[in-house]
Amino acid sequence: MHGVLLSVDPALRIVDLTHQVSPQDIIEGAFQLLTAVDAFPDGCVHVAVVDPGVGSARRGIVVQTTGRLFVAPDNGVLSYVLDDSIAAFEISESHARPVLTFTFHGRDIFAPVAGRLAARQIAPEEVGPAIDPGSLVRFPMMLEEGDGEVSGPIASIDHFGNCLTMIDAATLPARGEVIEVLCGRFHVGGLSRTYSDVSQGAPLALIGSYGAIELSVRDGDAARSYGLTRGDRVVVRFVRLQHSGSSGRR
Amino acid sequence: MHGVLLSVDPALRIVDLTHQVSPQDIIEGAFQLLTAVDAFPDGCVHVAVVDPGVGSARRGIVVQTTGRLFVAPDNGVLSYVLDDSIAAFEISESHARPVLTFTFHGRDIFAPVAGRLAARQIAPEEVGPAIDPGSLVRFPMMLEEGDGEVSGPIASIDHFGNCLTMIDAATLPARGEVIEVLCGRFHVGGLSRTYSDVSQGAPLALIGSYGAIELSVRDGDAARSYGLTRGDRVVVRFVRLQHSGSSGRR
Amino acid sequence: MHGVLLSVDPALRIVDLTHQVSPQDIIEGAFQLLTAVDAFPDGCVHVAVVDPGVGSARRGIVVQTTGRLFVAPDNGVLSYVLDDSIAAFEISESHARPVLTFTFHGRDIFAPVAGRLAARQIAPEEVGPAIDPGSLVRFPMMLEEGDGEVSGPIASIDHFGNCLTMIDAATLPARGEVIEVLCGRFHVGGLSRTYSDVSQGAPLALIGSYGAIELSVRDGDAARSYGLTRGDRVVVRFVRLQHSGSSGRR
Repeated sequence: MHGVLLSVDPALRIVDLTHQVSPQDIIEGAFQLLTAVDAFPDGCVHVAVVDPGVGSARRGIVVQTTGRLFVAPDNGVLSYVLDDSIAAFEISESHARPVLTFTFHGRDIFAPVAGRLAARQIAPEEVGPAIDPGSLVRFPMMLEEGDGEVSGPIASIDHFGNCLTMIDAATLPARGEVIEVLCGRFHVGGLSRTYSDVSQGAPLALIGSYGAIELSVRDGDAARSYGLTRGDRVVVRFVRLQHSGSSGRR
Repeated sequence: MHGVLLSVDPALRIVDLTHQVSPQDIIEGAFQLLTAVDAFPDGCVHVAVVDPGVGSARRGIVVQTTGRLFVAPDNGVLSYVLDDSIAAFEISESHARPVLTFTFHGRDIFAPVAGRLAARQIAPEEVGPAIDPGSLVRFPMMLEEGDGEVSGPIASIDHFGNCLTMIDAATLPARGEVIEVLCGRFHVGGLSRTYSDVSQGAPLALIGSYGAIELSVRDGDAARSYGLTRGDRVVVRFVRLQHSGSSGRR
Repeated sequence: MHGVLLSVDPALRIVDLTHQVSPQDIIEGAFQLLTAVDAFPDGCVHVAVVDPGVGSARRGIVVQTTGRLFVAPDNGVLSYVLDDSIAAFEISESHARPVLTFTFHGRDIFAPVAGRLAARQIAPEEVGPAIDPGSLVRFPMMLEEGDGEVSGPIASIDHFGNCLTMIDAATLPARGEVIEVLCGRFHVGGLSRTYSDVSQGAPLALIGSYGAIELSVRDGDAARSYGLTRGDRVVVRFVRLQHSGSSGRR
């Protein structure tokens, strides 16, 4: 893909976000995009290839959001970055490389299209017909609201064994004060601010670097210590804050 | 090596093809080059360092092909990209960095030479004496032709567990129709077009992204499922097509 | 971090030295810097983030040496590159990104500061108050001198299973001739020049690519073969050379 991109324009700047998405794991890829795109400057073209359906009838798409373009198969890998999508286009095969294989559209279709978009050689509407952004494949966040709790799956486990969720910390203050975070044998009595707020080897839950709940062990590996795996459900429990003037039980 | 290349010319564009060749596995490195160089633009300098003989008498070489230069130890790592070689040169030690170690010629010799070639500071014939391209170390493809079959080793196993061979699909039509692909317990009755042509978990053989036969499992790991390892022999069986006017047995 | 750096200046050149430092292993990170910085051109800004204390009171620092700048947490990760430090500065939080998390200062503080320094948008003394370079956290090399021997820990084990130490080969000639190198079951009777000087599978000790003692197995994996791990103590034994005019025991 690098070779194809630089064939389009040798002045392009290319960043590899990750090559460590588990094979065929579209949701993990979608999550990696969610956590990273905000750090990139406006005008970037993000090409995301987790593509088990390569060569089948699934569409190739370009999605335009405020300040960004995404190039990907239409299989859900853009699920968590679609909220501010402005327009979407289906990529025509005429944009593929001369030899189009059935097994590596990252190289044969997505890279040449992303390269030409990044080099401003074509505009998004030139890649193919406009399609309804509402028609794109989109995975839910899989969050559940209960009485005094919210839960969601472990979306990814990082290099350190930290277990990352999509439970957005920005939504917590309105809910109340966090008094418990649970996942299997993992159990802590509230949120910490950072790793070093607890003693070495102790578990903690905190607001991670992209603003969502994360389970961790200081200087340790939370996933291994507590036997946690992707998809395990993390429950966050609250005490609703008593507002002045509320008619509490007292 | 990046530091040395950018010391030569900070405007050089550098792509890491892979850092995951198994230690000392020259043939796997040669194969990675084979599958990737076509995606890179003309004018590239490819530096390939799988170098168990570093510090010994093995030569350092620059090979010129149509549109490309290769910089490497003369140990076979260029085996599968030499077909259209035009000229070859032995690198003189005068091109090494001031401190030349016996253990990392990638950094001390190959990177400075590749950098100067890429920056057009020197021409290939300036790196040292011209040598006969026919004298270069070269591994065979290890393909074998039989009656109605062709076989070759698994040359590499990718991140997905796909088992890649060097059995060139372009040679198949002249041979006939593929009716079997075998490797140990792996057995399929012909070629598929792409992964999603079979059901989840089913084995398939197809023409991979660089044009050769590949063994796969849809949404699975062929190497692990069938206990396949590098070097295992893959057999492709044909039925010779009856041409009109042929005097078949009928 | 790439996204933040390119947001500062899309013309910056960025090299990833390694993403494979073991989690929280500050000393391993310090060692990786030691072995690599000399290959990079003058004027580079090196940002090193192994940061278990992120979000705590540990300082963020910029250290100026001859020709280079280092940006890092003040936790010892710069230990082995501080010898020629000229000045040091504590990074003020005013240089952080608008949203400063407690868990990823690599992205939120160190990358924006390193980017502005590399783009020459700010000078080192503008990042915050000058501090005494002598006050910086600094790990010892952990070398020990004995009678006719010097020892030090395995500082890192590379991709090939080579065991790297910080026993500087430049100090050896003054000590005498190496007659033994030992580490657990690993035992050789002197130094070799390069891997291919011994037979396949044989152990050897040599002067590695950054000028220190390294334990290896030709075409093999020294760490696995001899059960060596990081921190294991390597002993190098000498025979003191008899100088002319010395009053030896003879």
